[in-house]
Amino acid sequence: MTRVRLDVSYDGTSFSGWAVQPERRTVAGVLAEALERLLGAGAATGLTVAGRTDAGVHATGQVCHVDLPDEQWARLGSTLVRRLAGLMPPDARVRGAREVPAGFDARFSATFRRYEYRVTDSPYGAEPLRRHDTLAWPRPLDADALNAAAKGFLGEHDFAAYCKRKENATTIRAISRLDWRRDPDGALVATVQADAFCQAMVRSLVGALLAAGDGRRPADWPAGLLGRRERSSEVTVAPAHGLTLVAVGYPEAEEYASRAELTRRLRG
Amino acid sequence: MTRVRLDVSYDGTSFSGWAVQPERRTVAGVLAEALERLLGAGAATGLTVAGRTDAGVHATGQVCHVDLPDEQWARLGSTLVRRLAGLMPPDARVRGAREVPAGFDARFSATFRRYEYRVTDSPYGAEPLRRHDTLAWPRPLDADALNAAAKGFLGEHDFAAYCKRKENATTIRAISRLDWRRDPDGALVATVQADAFCQAMVRSLVGALLAAGDGRRPADWPAGLLGRRERSSEVTVAPAHGLTLVAVGYPEAEEYASRAELTRRLRG
Repeated sequence: MTRVRLDVSYDGTSFSGWAVQPERRTVAGVLAEALERLLGAGAATGLTVAGRTDAGVHATGQVCHVDLPDEQWARLGSTLVRRLAGLMPPDARVRGAREVPAGFDARFSATFRRYEYRVTDSPYGAEPLRRHDTLAWPRPLDADALNAAAKGFLGEHDFAAYCKRKENATTIRAISRLDWRRDPDGALVATVQADAFCQAMVRSLVGALLAAGDGRRPADWPAGLLGRRERSSEVTVAPAHGLTLVAVGYPEAEEYASRAELTRRLRG
Repeated sequence: MTRVRLDVSYDGTSFSGWAVQPERRTVAGVLAEALERLLGAGAATGLTVAGRTDAGVHATGQVCHVDLPDEQWARLGSTLVRRLAGLMPPDARVRGAREVPAGFDARFSATFRRYEYRVTDSPYGAEPLRRHDTLAWPRPLDADALNAAAKGFLGEHDFAAYCKRKENATTIRAISRLDWRRDPDGALVATVQADAFCQAMVRSLVGALLAAGDGRRPADWPAGLLGRRERSSEVTVAPAHGLTLVAVGYPEAEEYASRAELTRRLRG
């Protein structure tokens, strides 16, 4: 078998998230269907993704892997992207397909996930052409207050206050980047990067930061919840449609397998 | 009366263009309806626009003007943008509203219109989140060939080959800018600026340039049609959804009226 890395983009608006669910339209579902139509039943078995995004969340830099018979890869590899484009709907695209070492694991080899969250505080709401990936915020936002509050999240912390509770799963994460900028169209864009995120964590962090950014909470309030052992009911989860997975990072090829082994032991 | 300049954005996907048409959903139609609901019947009479965009064409920098009773403007002016946002659908927004001198005419005072056309030649088609304003081109495009061909259009020419025929209307236009760049997402973006455009002219220019950009025509072919007196049947009009009106230029305030008078005499 040949391990193949697939780079995937999608507009999450009409998807019930990444993961396959019965009776729901999901990104993994339409991708698996296209792979099986092209390569035969079972072709998508073992399809593994870096970030299982929630319903409504978008991606421009999602990564997954799948194992294909060597003969199929040799025959179709160079045309796979174009062929899949013909078999998938316009709101989900495979942007690239390339052979990777067998030790590569899209999920466990990843060293970081990077998301962006777009929000506008303009009095007219979201720009029409960006309304599908921009949250309209009804109150003015202060970029300095957003950035001051964001700083408190940097580094390794127990994010239990910002995570949905899961049995036996660690809520310790390391945030390597979290800052806000104003885009040319006036929207505020948060870039959030960490080794990994628990479910709805980015949207919970953003929800807390927006409360500081519009002055309803002091700048030290979001990070002040980091001591808690349980999800905080005071934190509002920001809507899914402002969030986009923009990049997943991996180590050098010779470290794919050891990184995957380390992550599996840490996070199970 | 107070003359008010309105800056307008829209996603043209679900509009039958700018101009009001019976039984059709148009941008002027939804804007006029919102103005009349807020300000009373007749409030949108005389609504005048810089660029009457065709069905499917978008705008981030459209400009129009309307005359409002002084008393209404004094009472509602500062909240007009927010109020209109509540009365208009999310695919059309009034981004700004401000008083201008009575000599300002959104159409006739304008010194230039600037459009962008987005097209991708990637093997997977358009990025999902940009598919509404990006044309997917099935053949590879050469940015150098596109730019070489574009140069031939610069300056003042008779664009009859690129215009829909209209009785007694000049087809002479002055193109001050026409160049292509590659955006970070890989799409090729043309910026086209002229004093004014005849109907479907930008899309016709782009259609001819794409034929040079993918190698089906030589680089001097598009400008070679400029000598013709009639619309050329060899030119394909590029699809509307790649096109966005991004800016309209005006002179200094003291020249609004004289510029409008000059343009009226030149173009009727």
